[in-house]
Amino acid sequence: MIPPNFTRRIPEGEDRERLVCNDCGYIAYENPKIVVGSVVSDEGRILLCRRAIEPRRGYWTLPAGYMEMGETTEEGARREAWEEARARLAFDGILAIYSIARIGQVQIIYRARLAEPGYSPGPESLDVRFFAWGDIPWDDLAFPSVRWALRAWAEGETAIAGNPPRDPRGMDGL
Amino acid sequence: MIPPNFTRRIPEGEDRERLVCNDCGYIAYENPKIVVGSVVSDEGRILLCRRAIEPRRGYWTLPAGYMEMGETTEEGARREAWEEARARLAFDGILAIYSIARIGQVQIIYRARLAEPGYSPGPESLDVRFFAWGDIPWDDLAFPSVRWALRAWAEGETAIAGNPPRDPRGMDGL
Ligand SMILES: [Zn+2]
Ligand SMILES: [Zn+2]
Repeated sequence: MIPPNFTRRIPEGEDRERLVCNDCGYIAYENPKIVVGSVVSDEGRILLCRRAIEPRRGYWTLPAGYMEMGETTEEGARREAWEEARARLAFDGILAIYSIARIGQVQIIYRARLAEPGYSPGPESLDVRFFAWGDIPWDDLAFPSVRWALRAWAEGETAIAGNPPRDPRGMDGL
Repeated sequence: MIPPNFTRRIPEGEDRERLVCNDCGYIAYENPKIVVGSVVSDEGRILLCRRAIEPRRGYWTLPAGYMEMGETTEEGARREAWEEARARLAFDGILAIYSIARIGQVQIIYRARLAEPGYSPGPESLDVRFFAWGDIPWDDLAFPSVRWALRAWAEGETAIAGNPPRDPRGMDGL
């Protein structure tokens, strides 16, 4: 993922390696990225999207994606639910925050409901469905954090869930 | 803040403007950055650091700073408390999450205590002190979010505080 003309080295006045452009000295700071998403429930059923894009095409995930500049975390979660599931959300607070250090992600997951009826696959989804708890396709979930968030939701966690104890850096099973 | 040889334009296959290097076409994605910090309390008093660096040199702030790659949010908050206050922390969960959309920040603020005695100014601090609530230098706080976090702490909020109602984008008074 390093652009061809960048080198990893310690710039003057810094204390750790950065990506520096060989041509112009531009420092491409690598910062952890924020993923915002939602566990959307309706009478105990959960909204999942089947991914139309890589990675993990064909697997089921929560409506979630990278937060963009200029939006709040809630606005980001709202936008992603529209882009992926054509769903308009109302939020009931934050369910969980997961740090996935190896890939430089922090996931902020909301509890949500449909603010108005209707949902359908957006361009990044093959299918969008509400699943009863017993019907959730556990073996076909796209990412471990989808499983964590579903479990946190089912346990009615009111505090913030951190990463599962066995998996402090968010890597297990990825 | 645009590097000299970058232009803001819409790259092929994207739907919004990005910073693109005129020399090599490298796209410098601008993502919201994560600030991790702590309200560290000890018998009702709160730890504040007087900033030795710009912006807001001389003003008081919480131990907090940008999360780095390869760490979890908690590890980041721990590192910042060491760098700025030479304090070793124990955490009691997340106090608040603030989106400061205009400057592209998401702040994740922990409730914390000293895990071991001792604290002193690190290289980025002029002074580090525990303040009783009535002695907090409200007019000399570095950032509005410091005030928000202190208020959230005092109100004993167990849920996550969002941005104050008057200030949904985190801009008031900055
Ligand atoms: Zn360059
Ligand atoms: Zn370049």
